[in-house]
Amino acid sequence: MKLWLTTITAALSLQLHASELKLDNNLAYQLTESLTVEVGQRLAGSDADRRAVAWAEQKFQQLGYDKVWREPFTMQYWQRGQASLSVSAPFHQQLVVTALGGSIATPFDGINSQVVMFDSLEQLKQADAAQVKDKIVFINKSMAKDKLGTFYGSVVGARAQGAVEAAKLGAKAIIIRSVGTSINRFAHTGIMRYSEEVPRIPAAAISVPDAIQLEKMLSRQPELTLHLQMDNKLPGEVESHNVIAEITGSKYPDEIVLISAHLDSWDEGTGALDDGAGVGIVMATGALLKQQGRPERTVRVVLFGNEEGGLVGARAYAAKHAAKLKQHVFASESDFGAGRIWRLDTGFGPNSLPFGQTLQQQLAHLDISLGDNSATGGPDVSILKAQGVPVVTLQQDGTDYFDYHHTPNDTLDKVDPAAMQQNLAAWLITTKAVANSRIDLRQ
Amino acid sequence: MKLWLTTITAALSLQLHASELKLDNNLAYQLTESLTVEVGQRLAGSDADRRAVAWAEQKFQQLGYDKVWREPFTMQYWQRGQASLSVSAPFHQQLVVTALGGSIATPFDGINSQVVMFDSLEQLKQADAAQVKDKIVFINKSMAKDKLGTFYGSVVGARAQGAVEAAKLGAKAIIIRSVGTSINRFAHTGIMRYSEEVPRIPAAAISVPDAIQLEKMLSRQPELTLHLQMDNKLPGEVESHNVIAEITGSKYPDEIVLISAHLDSWDEGTGALDDGAGVGIVMATGALLKQQGRPERTVRVVLFGNEEGGLVGARAYAAKHAAKLKQHVFASESDFGAGRIWRLDTGFGPNSLPFGQTLQQQLAHLDISLGDNSATGGPDVSILKAQGVPVVTLQQDGTDYFDYHHTPNDTLDKVDPAAMQQNLAAWLITTKAVANSRIDLRQ
Ligand SMILES: [Zn+2]
Ligand SMILES: [Zn+2]
Repeated sequence: MKLWLTTITAALSLQLHASELKLDNNLAYQLTESLTVEVGQRLAGSDADRRAVAWAEQKFQQLGYDKVWREPFTMQYWQRGQASLSVSAPFHQQLVVTALGGSIATPFDGINSQVVMFDSLEQLKQADAAQVKDKIVFINKSMAKDKLGTFYGSVVGARAQGAVEAAKLGAKAIIIRSVGTSINRFAHTGIMRYSEEVPRIPAAAISVPDAIQLEKMLSRQPELTLHLQMDNKLPGEVESHNVIAEITGSKYPDEIVLISAHLDSWDEGTGALDDGAGVGIVMATGALLKQQGRPERTVRVVLFGNEEGGLVGARAYAAKHAAKLKQHVFASESDFGAGRIWRLDTGFGPNSLPFGQTLQQQLAHLDISLGDNSATGGPDVSILKAQGVPVVTLQQDGTDYFDYHHTPNDTLDKVDPAAMQQNLAAWLITTKAVANSRIDLRQ
Repeated sequence: MKLWLTTITAALSLQLHASELKLDNNLAYQLTESLTVEVGQRLAGSDADRRAVAWAEQKFQQLGYDKVWREPFTMQYWQRGQASLSVSAPFHQQLVVTALGGSIATPFDGINSQVVMFDSLEQLKQADAAQVKDKIVFINKSMAKDKLGTFYGSVVGARAQGAVEAAKLGAKAIIIRSVGTSINRFAHTGIMRYSEEVPRIPAAAISVPDAIQLEKMLSRQPELTLHLQMDNKLPGEVESHNVIAEITGSKYPDEIVLISAHLDSWDEGTGALDDGAGVGIVMATGALLKQQGRPERTVRVVLFGNEEGGLVGARAYAAKHAAKLKQHVFASESDFGAGRIWRLDTGFGPNSLPFGQTLQQQLAHLDISLGDNSATGGPDVSILKAQGVPVVTLQQDGTDYFDYHHTPNDTLDKVDPAAMQQNLAAWLITTKAVANSRIDLRQ
């Protein structure tokens, strides 16, 4: 630990000025490395989550933040167990599978049923119960790549709602082709939902190569039997935390410029891209801002808990701070991996659009252009935006994000330190511009 | 199965002429697909191995080979169990691990010991017993990429001999950085060896990202404790088979032109690149040759069993056919994935080098150049070469081979059908040239 502190201290003592683009330290990357190496995965509600909370508090302290605290919330804890899926007849093979977050277990001996394939959630919805009853549904929809991750939205429905739709038709379980863009043999996890109206059935994802394999098997032998076994646990309600730290504003301490990321991660990788990178970027931003001279407004860094379970920490934050959301003059979140930022999207009042243009001009040397005014601010921050808080999205290049996202392959080696530097520069410029202005972005 | 047969029959009826480069069917790829989809992994000695043998015999028959038979051999069967590796103190993380082939199990409760890292097998060999005794050795040597897989040889020693060297110094177990070139989070398996002189200790590989992670942990905390648990089994001697088929020569049936691949695979992928591709290529070569008019010499296709365990089937073949190896006028094996062939290496007698040049001229339109005269012919065929059988190696581009080799990620989607076509064309030309000549390549 000592060595690390020395490095950070040395980095801070460089007195870096982002606006002059002389960021030659690596603080954001170092923080991401520290979190992923020392804590690793940090599934919300787990022991590792508690270690991550402790890590974050300690690091905020070490970085010289003025105030550091945690805010508890309660959540449903879901615990992964073993998962296995095999073709039991006629081809006898193991497939690579992972439980979807929130899924119940199978019976102890597993589920042995014929599989029925659908191209999409939409096709499943139109199916007859006779086709589906007592079977294992397989939704085999592939996902295309782009910078914005546009196609995620059109496939993730199978993951989130597939179990409900399959259960409506009497299915025993559902498996989906992984919501991801890589042909590497990793299954992608992610949260799924049940409804009170229909039975809960086990839900899992298979890797893209296994989906291709299963499709090829079915084209040879449509009456294929699968055996699915999973022993996930749902231990019930536990406590988790948002971790919050502030650099107190020198002139307007009650006006809050909120920058954020989420501290929790899925449990199979080390959560380096999702969202260790975001954690490193925003923690470093606050620390370096203070080193550059205290900002006029307060800069609050929020590391939300349990984003992956459905923005649970963000909802708790919004509820707890409901009376003070008016004092939140700005919010943004870094949660789309570690790619370079290429566009500034705003979510401002109409009179503030010129401020967005000025901000983009300050970011232009980082190859960041101006997008539109319909930014969400990021998953957790979208909850604040819904309450009227102005936001920006510093849009990262997510072309490869869904190659790694929610898989065991989300590890530190996928993070490019140079791209992290560019992110940090953009966050410093943006946060500083808002924190040292008098603008009311709601207008 | 019916559909598949129709396709093959249609393909064969095209009467393709490789020398005219009008290979517009996909027979080699189709065979690889059939093997990997219908059988999948086929670890030597397993039930899946037996299914693969039955598959091969059936396909040879369907493809119209004149003779098809199997030749039994005995082998030591090694069965993978569960494997887990975690950092037990101070960082509490699971690492991605796989047992090396042949490794014993750990005690039921696993091994909990401090880890000691070495940069290479050579560095381990120079260590003091005091550094190593009662610890888990970690060899952290990375592998570079090239077309020829040159660097495999310089890292695979840690996998093959690491357990013996570590045991000499009193280690409790050994883990190695995967012998592979990808940063995807897959651990690479492969055969390892014990010696009668020192205790057998468990041996495993961790993925490249996990090796990087472990190295970073050790730089923070040199006194790191690992917990390794594996329950592999060594059930003892079982029978496996080489599967052999022939197109009988029209004029010189006793002169054998042997082309080959290995039928077995490691158990975590589906063995598409290693060596499903080779199986498809050589099975298709014989079948299409017959369609083009029976060759003058006999073309024998050998699918060797248990290559991965140490050329066990190849040794059995050489022993069984010892008296007839003189009749083997040529041998070659396809076992380096599914990349395009870019070079012809020969292993001929000095008087036959002009034949190699003529052959290369026939291959030049496929972008195949002439290499040197020190070809091994391939892993299994190297056993025949050692007995004086002339060989060639149709050298494939292996740049990406070690990204997938011996990992769960060795699946059909990594095979490029167009590259398979190019391979098939080269094998057809080469095999036909030798089978229809009178040349004695030993001279
Ligand atoms: Zn995220
Ligand atoms: Zn091989």
